[in-house]
Amino acid sequence: MFIRFITTGGTIDKIYFDALSQFEVGDSPVDTILGEGLVSFDYDVVSLFRKDSLELTDADRTALREFIEADDAGRYVISHGTDTMVETAAVLAAIENKRMVLTGALSPARFKTTDAVFNVGMAVAAVQLVDPGVYIAMNGQVFRADQVRKNREENRFELIE
Amino acid sequence: MFIRFITTGGTIDKIYFDALSQFEVGDSPVDTILGEGLVSFDYDVVSLFRKDSLELTDADRTALREFIEADDAGRYVISHGTDTMVETAAVLAAIENKRMVLTGALSPARFKTTDAVFNVGMAVAAVQLVDPGVYIAMNGQVFRADQVRKNREENRFELIE
Amino acid sequence: MFIRFITTGGTIDKIYFDALSQFEVGDSPVDTILGEGLVSFDYDVVSLFRKDSLELTDADRTALREFIEADDAGRYVISHGTDTMVETAAVLAAIENKRMVLTGALSPARFKTTDAVFNVGMAVAAVQLVDPGVYIAMNGQVFRADQVRKNREENRFELIE
Amino acid sequence: MFIRFITTGGTIDKIYFDALSQFEVGDSPVDTILGEGLVSFDYDVVSLFRKDSLELTDADRTALREFIEADDAGRYVISHGTDTMVETAAVLAAIENKRMVLTGALSPARFKTTDAVFNVGMAVAAVQLVDPGVYIAMNGQVFRADQVRKNREENRFELIE
Repeated sequence: MFIRFITTGGTIDKIYFDALSQFEVGDSPVDTILGEGLVSFDYDVVSLFRKDSLELTDADRTALREFIEADDAGRYVISHGTDTMVETAAVLAAIENKRMVLTGALSPARFKTTDAVFNVGMAVAAVQLVDPGVYIAMNGQVFRADQVRKNREENRFELIE
Repeated sequence: MFIRFITTGGTIDKIYFDALSQFEVGDSPVDTILGEGLVSFDYDVVSLFRKDSLELTDADRTALREFIEADDAGRYVISHGTDTMVETAAVLAAIENKRMVLTGALSPARFKTTDAVFNVGMAVAAVQLVDPGVYIAMNGQVFRADQVRKNREENRFELIE
Repeated sequence: MFIRFITTGGTIDKIYFDALSQFEVGDSPVDTILGEGLVSFDYDVVSLFRKDSLELTDADRTALREFIEADDAGRYVISHGTDTMVETAAVLAAIENKRMVLTGALSPARFKTTDAVFNVGMAVAAVQLVDPGVYIAMNGQVFRADQVRKNREENRFELIE
Repeated sequence: MFIRFITTGGTIDKIYFDALSQFEVGDSPVDTILGEGLVSFDYDVVSLFRKDSLELTDADRTALREFIEADDAGRYVISHGTDTMVETAAVLAAIENKRMVLTGALSPARFKTTDAVFNVGMAVAAVQLVDPGVYIAMNGQVFRADQVRKNREENRFELIE
């Protein structure tokens, strides 16, 4: 089994900046998480964007869709900011015969307390088990991408009723 | 969706003891992991055993099978020591019409670096997506329980070829 | 022994905000750090400000000095942003017969990797051992407050030569 | 300033072993802790023993004393198991004109929740500030080594009254 991970930025990836100084951590959180997860499948990690998902443009989403369409893998885990994860998923729905699971985090992977590790674990399992299509793995659930929304007041993903 | 978590001990659950003193942590690691994962489904956690899996007996495995058969849930995540996870899975294979995913950890959940969070994330996603039966989620993969073994030299789970 | 902890904000205390959502953690990092440090002395924690140290005003520094002068404790650990820690220390130098150690962090206490715990440990030891006066505990060293500066290019504190 | 760190084993250093498999982590916890503490002084780390402190013998303690006597440094932080830390300190009391601070941890440095980082921070500050002699930094306090005991029921260090 091979999984291609695509990182696009968002909270999961957040690096801390203060007013006068800044620092970055070398590895992407996804690499670190897969290392801690002791995964034994083949994978690579492609960094396409480093943006808050509110700043992702239509052109960015098209670029992501075209990247996946032109790519030779069959399974993708896409880390993404939570605010527009559903919008990006809708664009990817045009892709046929591939399994794509979007995930992210409500608190950064670099925090002591974060949902990032759990969520990437969910996405990795889901992308092995689902039929082709686009899914969102957040808040302990694997949603079909067209059946979920982010409830911003509650800061969680939920089924559209 | 409702998931019943059953803990049986094993490395994931390991609490530290030294020669002259000891301490325990109140919450089970599974509760802590689900809290950090910000899960929004309904669940409970039942603690059946607190044993290294090498110490689990046939009677223990029968008790686990009977517990699940008599229980009204449809989806189970079972945390278990890794050394005999496959043996326990074989006993559970007799249960019909339920989804059971066993997982555990190669380093304890209380360690700074652990595969426990990732693995529970995988198990939670898997138990939502699989057909009825018994599965093992370890090392980044969701295995059918009758197609996997623990390679002790490499300290990882792998497909039986 | 009694130590009064005063928190003023800064990186050590940083809570994460994103564009559309926000969350706060209940305990102050100093409380959490002292709990993990298993400290057995008496203490309390007073929160005076919650500011980046670049935003602390002369009036804030005067208020801090007056608070300590009017207070009945003899030993203070003051958590503070790093950018103006030296300026605040200079204002506190007017206080007689008290031991004051400022500390902070170059990465937030809520990060997996942070200097906050180590630094508070240093400050707690220092405030027990120093003569009355003002000190800064950062980067593994306990500096007299009038002999140290923050080197912003290197992002660390160093002796004034 | 130069500090020589000497590791002797104990809980702070504990590596996890289970019945059938084992793993070790490359760096000693002390190196990792000093890295996270962003320390800027010069130091090295010498590993003398890897033992539970209950297993340290008189010969080990003599070897430690002779190592320090023959060594050219002036400041030592010695990580040590807690059960016989006081006994080792008594042996080191024969050494003149050097500053020695023993510390350790009541839960292992590799745990998510540990007092190891806080304690090493305390020891590093203390060894810069004390007069020559032997000290123990545990439970938020810097004790003279001949004025402290471990209370095993309470699992903490306390002044001898």
